[in-house]
Order: sequence, then C-alpha cells, then structure tokens
Amino acid sequence: MALTYSVIGSGAVGGYYGGRLAKAGRTVRFLLRSDYEYVREHGLQVDSVDGSFHLQPIEAYNDTRAMPKSDVVLVALKTTTNHRLPQLLAPIVDEKTLVVLIQNGIGVEADVQQMFPNLQLVAGLAFICSAKTSPGRVSHQCYGSINFGNYSASPEAVALLLDDFLQAGVKAAEVPYLEARWRKAVWNMPFNGMTVALNTSTDQLLRCPATRLLIRRQMLEVVGAARAQGVEALTDDFADEMLRMTDEMVPYSPSMKLDYDFHRAMEIHYLYTRPIEEARRAGFAMPRLAMLEAELKFLSVHSS
Amino acid sequence: MALTYSVIGSGAVGGYYGGRLAKAGRTVRFLLRSDYEYVREHGLQVDSVDGSFHLQPIEAYNDTRAMPKSDVVLVALKTTTNHRLPQLLAPIVDEKTLVVLIQNGIGVEADVQQMFPNLQLVAGLAFICSAKTSPGRVSHQCYGSINFGNYSASPEAVALLLDDFLQAGVKAAEVPYLEARWRKAVWNMPFNGMTVALNTSTDQLLRCPATRLLIRRQMLEVVGAARAQGVEALTDDFADEMLRMTDEMVPYSPSMKLDYDFHRAMEIHYLYTRPIEEARRAGFAMPRLAMLEAELKFLSVHSS
Repeated sequence: MALTYSVIGSGAVGGYYGGRLAKAGRTVRFLLRSDYEYVREHGLQVDSVDGSFHLQPIEAYNDTRAMPKSDVVLVALKTTTNHRLPQLLAPIVDEKTLVVLIQNGIGVEADVQQMFPNLQLVAGLAFICSAKTSPGRVSHQCYGSINFGNYSASPEAVALLLDDFLQAGVKAAEVPYLEARWRKAVWNMPFNGMTVALNTSTDQLLRCPATRLLIRRQMLEVVGAARAQGVEALTDDFADEMLRMTDEMVPYSPSMKLDYDFHRAMEIHYLYTRPIEEARRAGFAMPRLAMLEAELKFLSVHSS
Repeated sequence: MALTYSVIGSGAVGGYYGGRLAKAGRTVRFLLRSDYEYVREHGLQVDSVDGSFHLQPIEAYNDTRAMPKSDVVLVALKTTTNHRLPQLLAPIVDEKTLVVLIQNGIGVEADVQQMFPNLQLVAGLAFICSAKTSPGRVSHQCYGSINFGNYSASPEAVALLLDDFLQAGVKAAEVPYLEARWRKAVWNMPFNGMTVALNTSTDQLLRCPATRLLIRRQMLEVVGAARAQGVEALTDDFADEMLRMTDEMVPYSPSMKLDYDFHRAMEIHYLYTRPIEEARRAGFAMPRLAMLEAELKFLSVHSS
C-alpha cells in the first residue's frame, strides 16, 4: 500500500519534493498560504534542471484542520515558524504518522518531540538550490538530493519513505541522525552567517584569502563539534571537500542571506544557538561561530 | 635646558599635544600637509574642554627636510603611512633624538627601530577624543591623557618628556612598555573593528546583550595575550573596567570606523595582524580577534 503525504510549507523546498512525489503518482496534499487561491486554480509549476512539470489538478489546502491525515508529513517551513507547529500539526498527526523535518540546523527534532512525544520523527537535509519565483511556481536550479536521519521512527517506515523518494527520481539516502544534521551544518553555519555579516556571496568569501581561511576554520569548528558528539564519520577532509564544492558552485546567496535581504526573520536559533549549546555541553567550544551568532543577533535588530 | 619638539602629523592628536606644549612655552615645529598654507597664515586653533587657545605665530613646515633637528619628535600619523617614516624622519633625527610614536597597535616600535637602529624610541598611548574639524582647527572633546612606554630611550630623556607634558597641563604617566601598548589594545581591538564590521557605534554594541558579551570575550583575549607576553599588571577585571568606562562615554566612532566611513586605509596591520602574531608566538590564540581581522580584510577590499 502506497504512502500518502502532506506537505506543510509548499515553498521552494516543500513544493519541489512534494511535487516530485505527486508527479510519481503519490497522493500529496499541499498546505499553502499566500499561493493557495492561485495554486487551487492554476496548479503548481516546477521548473527543474532535472525536467520541468506541471501538477493540475492538485490537492491544495489553506488550513491543516481541513486536511485528511496522511502517512507522512513533510515539514518544509523555516524553523523561525516552528512555534506554530503544535497548532499546525495537531489536526494531521497521530502515533503512526511519520513527520519529516526538512529544516536546517541542530535540535529541531528534540523540540518537536517535546511537543508531540509519540510522533515518529525523521530529519530531512535537503541539498538543493531552488526558489519560489512567482505564485505557484518553483524553480529548481541545481543539486536536489536529500539525506534522511532517523530520529525516532520505525526503521521500516523510513525504508518506505526512502523508497518513495527514490522512485520519484530524487537522490535520497539514509544517514545516521546526528551525522546527517551535523554534516549539513558544516556548510550551513559558516556560509549562511558570513554572507549576512559581510553582505556578500559565497564566491567573494572564498576569493578573499583572509575570509577563505576563516570559513575553513569555522567549518573545522563544526567538524570538531560533531566529533565531540560522537560523529566519527565527519573528518577535517570534509571541510576541504565543502570548500572545493563551493568553489565550483555559481555565486550563491544562502537562505539566511535571502531572509536578511528581504527583512524576514533569520534562523539564528537552530543554525547557531542550539549547535553551539550542544557542542558546549559536549565540552567543545566554537568561538568563531559563537562570534558570528552574536553578530547576527546584533544585525537582526539593527538591519541596514 | 628645555626640550625642543617636532610634530609629524599635526592632526587631531598631534595638533592637540603639540599645541599644549607650544602653549606652555616649548619650541614646537609642526609638519603639516593639506593645512600648511592655512596654518602658516592663520595659526592653529585648539578648541578644548580643558580650555581653548590659539597659536600664532607658529612654526609650520611642509617638508621635514626644511625642519631644524629637535630633541623630541612626536609621530602622530596613522600607522598606515609608516612606510613613509624612513624618508620623513631621516632629515630630523640622530642618535640623540627621542622619537615618540603616538600610534595605535602592537609592534610599531620594533619596526621603526629596524629602520633606525640607533633611535631612542618611546611609545605614546593617547586616551583622547579629538578631531580635526576644519583646516587649522582641532577640537578636543574629552579625556586627553597620554601614557608613555619606554622602548629604547634613556630613562632620563623619558623623565624630561614626561615633565614637559605635565607642565603643559596634560595628564601624562610612564607605564612599562608592553603594558602601555597592550593596555590600550584592550579597548582598541574590540571596538575599532566591531564598529566597522557591524557598521555601528560603541553604545549600540554594548546595548545588545550578544555583542556586549562578545566584546567582553574579545577584551579577555587581549588581556590573555598580554599576560602570555608577561604583562602581569593586566587582569580580567580591566576588561570590565573598560566596559563600564565605555558605557559612560558618549556614543563613539573609533578611528578605524571613521577611516572606513571616509574610505581611508584601516590600521589592520598594527591593530590586529601584529598583536595576533605576537600572541601566537607566545603560545596564545585569539580566535575572535583573528576572525575580526579577516572580516576587516574582506571589508577593506569590498567596501560598501
């Protein structure tokens, strides 16, 4: 029996993965906010380097209280709205529901598990460049893979989830939970904050020798924090791998930079505060990223 | 026999201290650049919270090759122009000349001593808020004391220097060389760079809890570096003293912030690179200030 899906937050990320699953024949229910009327009428357009497609008709909702329960809930909201999750999720989850938090940072599963102690939680780490370009239109420019880290779900449920994503043409993999989250933090923590702090893009940061070295040292802080938590699979080599990968990327504005530029809340809590706390609890200091956290907190209330 | 003085760099700082000495009856020769014609004609006006005064006639020069040799040379240039010192000083110094480097940072005496191995060098650490407000006009708004640190001068010469400053109404003191330089760095290193990096002023940095804590940690890095070099007189308490003092100051733009805002070169080398190097050589790491150094280097070539 095929799994059914609900997508909470049908933007650049949720719209893309949900769209892929729907295109592959899965039942997918999309929760929309500002785009609700438009999508209900015109459907969802996904412009993708891996093949564009249009979904119409589409199961569109503007309130989770109107949604049927699905087997899987993909949460693809910014973590800055996670305080709304109790209200959003309550109508559509029970102890059998698999909730995949496709969000950045460290500590989100722990907090959501506190809200819903019986929920089966999975971390979703998306490696994707995508953007919502207009109402009902998602543009997927590059990459697109997703790593799942099982936090509190049954292994069988995660295996079915993985299968569905693979069948939908998404490069998906299962990675041990902590490794999955910290692996992505190696790129996220330096680049998201530094592009905001210095009002620049990834390529400029890497072209200046001083900031290139700083970014590398910040990456090594993340690797060190992960290893202090027992994630043996992450080594210093991975930092250099991430630098090389970023060298080859087109000049890129990470999500936090876009949030800052568009005067939206930045994900400082889960991208900085929580990982730095977790590392400290494991006896590992992250002075450069803690400094970046402080700079971001300052900028979040003194935006230019 | 009274000492004679030459002031190299007759701006906000050199103009003030040189002016005080001239007003007290000392022979003071001023090297001027853009203000030369104006000052030669109209003299130098010092607006000061400790009593304003006007100097006319005044010994004004626009080339050190035209200056008589003085007993003391006060160098009050930004360190970003120190590469010009061999040429500037050569005509006016011999082995008896006392050269006071009223400059910020760590390592300036070592470098100038390399240029002139027989020079008698003294560090001058000015604690003053002053500005050049128009040609030939210096405004002294608050503080005004100066600490001298003897690097390679005869103790007798430093005693005479100190005497002259005291007689000129300047709160002057002698402090052990390394202590003098590092003591000022405790304030300078955090505030100069952070006001540039976050495009703000001292009061805003201290009002935000995150950056206040960061500033304190950066101050403790400077104290730690000083202690690693054997400066026992500096303790963590001094950081808190500096924070309290800054709380009581009017919102202030440090010199590096003014340099950045007016698109002038920033004193990154002597304010950051050198002290961080000296600390590392003594086995002490300054990760937060090294990060700030990297940010400043980036901003110096990507100014907004």
